[in-house]
Amino acid sequence: MKEHLYIVIMAGGKGTRFWPLSRGESPKQLLNICGERSMIQETVHRVLPLVPTDRILVVTAAAHADEIRRQLPNIPDRNILEEPVGRNTAPCIGLAATHLARRDPDAVMIVLPADHLIKDEEPFRETLIHAAQIAEKSANLITIGITPTWPETGYGYIQLGDAREYPDFKSYQVKSFREKPNAESAEEFIKSGDFVWNSGMFIWRASTILANIERFLPRIYRQLLQIRVSIGSSNEQSTLNRIYPRIEPQSIDFGVMERSSNVFSLRGNFRWNDVGSWNALGDVWQKDEHGNACYGKPAISVNATKSIVFSPKKQVALVHVDNLIVVETDDALLVCRSDKAQDVKKIVELLEEKGMTELL
Amino acid sequence: MKEHLYIVIMAGGKGTRFWPLSRGESPKQLLNICGERSMIQETVHRVLPLVPTDRILVVTAAAHADEIRRQLPNIPDRNILEEPVGRNTAPCIGLAATHLARRDPDAVMIVLPADHLIKDEEPFRETLIHAAQIAEKSANLITIGITPTWPETGYGYIQLGDAREYPDFKSYQVKSFREKPNAESAEEFIKSGDFVWNSGMFIWRASTILANIERFLPRIYRQLLQIRVSIGSSNEQSTLNRIYPRIEPQSIDFGVMERSSNVFSLRGNFRWNDVGSWNALGDVWQKDEHGNACYGKPAISVNATKSIVFSPKKQVALVHVDNLIVVETDDALLVCRSDKAQDVKKIVELLEEKGMTELL
Repeated sequence: MKEHLYIVIMAGGKGTRFWPLSRGESPKQLLNICGERSMIQETVHRVLPLVPTDRILVVTAAAHADEIRRQLPNIPDRNILEEPVGRNTAPCIGLAATHLARRDPDAVMIVLPADHLIKDEEPFRETLIHAAQIAEKSANLITIGITPTWPETGYGYIQLGDAREYPDFKSYQVKSFREKPNAESAEEFIKSGDFVWNSGMFIWRASTILANIERFLPRIYRQLLQIRVSIGSSNEQSTLNRIYPRIEPQSIDFGVMERSSNVFSLRGNFRWNDVGSWNALGDVWQKDEHGNACYGKPAISVNATKSIVFSPKKQVALVHVDNLIVVETDDALLVCRSDKAQDVKKIVELLEEKGMTELL
Repeated sequence: MKEHLYIVIMAGGKGTRFWPLSRGESPKQLLNICGERSMIQETVHRVLPLVPTDRILVVTAAAHADEIRRQLPNIPDRNILEEPVGRNTAPCIGLAATHLARRDPDAVMIVLPADHLIKDEEPFRETLIHAAQIAEKSANLITIGITPTWPETGYGYIQLGDAREYPDFKSYQVKSFREKPNAESAEEFIKSGDFVWNSGMFIWRASTILANIERFLPRIYRQLLQIRVSIGSSNEQSTLNRIYPRIEPQSIDFGVMERSSNVFSLRGNFRWNDVGSWNALGDVWQKDEHGNACYGKPAISVNATKSIVFSPKKQVALVHVDNLIVVETDDALLVCRSDKAQDVKKIVELLEEKGMTELL
């Protein structure tokens, strides 16, 4: 199997929820907010024990391709797929599958978001290997469901059904996908034991996902075929630039996973975080004795707790404040209540409305 | 009277409650946080219709004298009195009175803090003139009491007693001085109508205040006499440097005003603010429709109210926060609950403890 295994990293995110650090030019996946490397470098580094760099593909916005190449010099140029515009995950995955199916009809692809945080790398890779073993020999669509450790309301959930036993692990028929629940439902999900967090990681044969796209998203499939015939020809780029923007945006979850009856999930028993907002970094950065998580040098505080501070260049002082997010960059300063971190994207919208493009 | 009238500006404040903007090098009175000019420049500007610059004296820390001279080029050099160390208001006022009494035995001095905000300049000057008229012809110690407009707990109060009628105004015997009250007492003070805010502005003859210092603070008086005999001699500076640090710190309120029975107060009916902390600037700076007061360009906000923002160089974004103070300078960033602004000085203490002198 190993020589047919490929990693596809989805790096199309705009990261508006990480303003003012993430900008149009530098979305979250290109920033090193979680460690010494950028998030996409971490993502690649985590899978290097599984495949050679030649079999790692990155799908990204054309605008970020140069920076991706700079950050990932060992990924061959032809493995960087540039989307002229973002069209959500179904076209992104379809594009990668189209390239892979042409290159290797037996390709098994592991699809990973570029901007997730994973703490326990060995169990992570083991889970992917197990999934790839099933995918190789079946027409299954496989997702990784993270065994939840608290009733998070910011994640989608997957309800697991019957298990299939394998020597070292189990694969679960997926009963249903659930959108981000309210607190009560989340509690019930956790209690039941049948629910896992939807991680957005997928494993399947390239041919399997293309067959599913053909069935459930026939229009997108035809558009991908048009792109496919151009691959390797002199008009590959012009075809992509012409066809891709016409594709209807569609998520792989809505478009395929929730419609197919052939969907399975493996339990991922590792620490995972989708780093969906500044708030997530409170669990990532070093905390002081008052629960303040700071990137760089610790904040000085008087009766201040549970705040999240990014200010690598300046000393921050907190006085009688709790549960704040404070982010300082060269030209902007954000102060946000931590349980409202998702509203940071509203600031980005306001800046767009006001035409303050220098801050976007 | 006019040719014997002098203004003495007390500019010894360290302004630790305005960290990180105010520093050892640049205390509040030298910053222009309330207008186009620095606070001490505003203070001088306000009294220019009363006296020529030759009769304006400034008492300041030796460390700030050069900057004071730079900011106030029209004040004669001999009018800048440098304290080798700060010894609170009684020695400061005593030093100025000593110089003035030697220069003009009939000197009437108006003592003003360098760092207060006054909005209505005409009634302010009129009140000072009235006070000076009484002071000139009596041995009264006169304070300005501001007619309070809300039950502020951050100011001291003066209880007014019997009034003496003058053609255009009244002077009130002072019944008692009250420290910063709790909220309940403050409410009672306002209801009674007999209480005014203690503004820290004083008017008296130089000879009168020296006589009172002789009576109530005889040790300080003797030390001032030692300084007096050296004035104009070649060892003036060395005497000051030797004697002044030995003086016991003492406030004029505790040391003289609360002990003398000859204390009167005039009502000041003008908008006044002692600008005691960042919180005070919420009433000074332009407010947006959400009650956020910003220095410089307005903050962008999503559901954020009643915050005070100083960040002249960066765009600030506030998300779901209320009643915060946010102050950003080149090397530090403060976030503080606005009703706890007085605790900013604890940050300065912490920085001192930690030896982080570059931030002081």
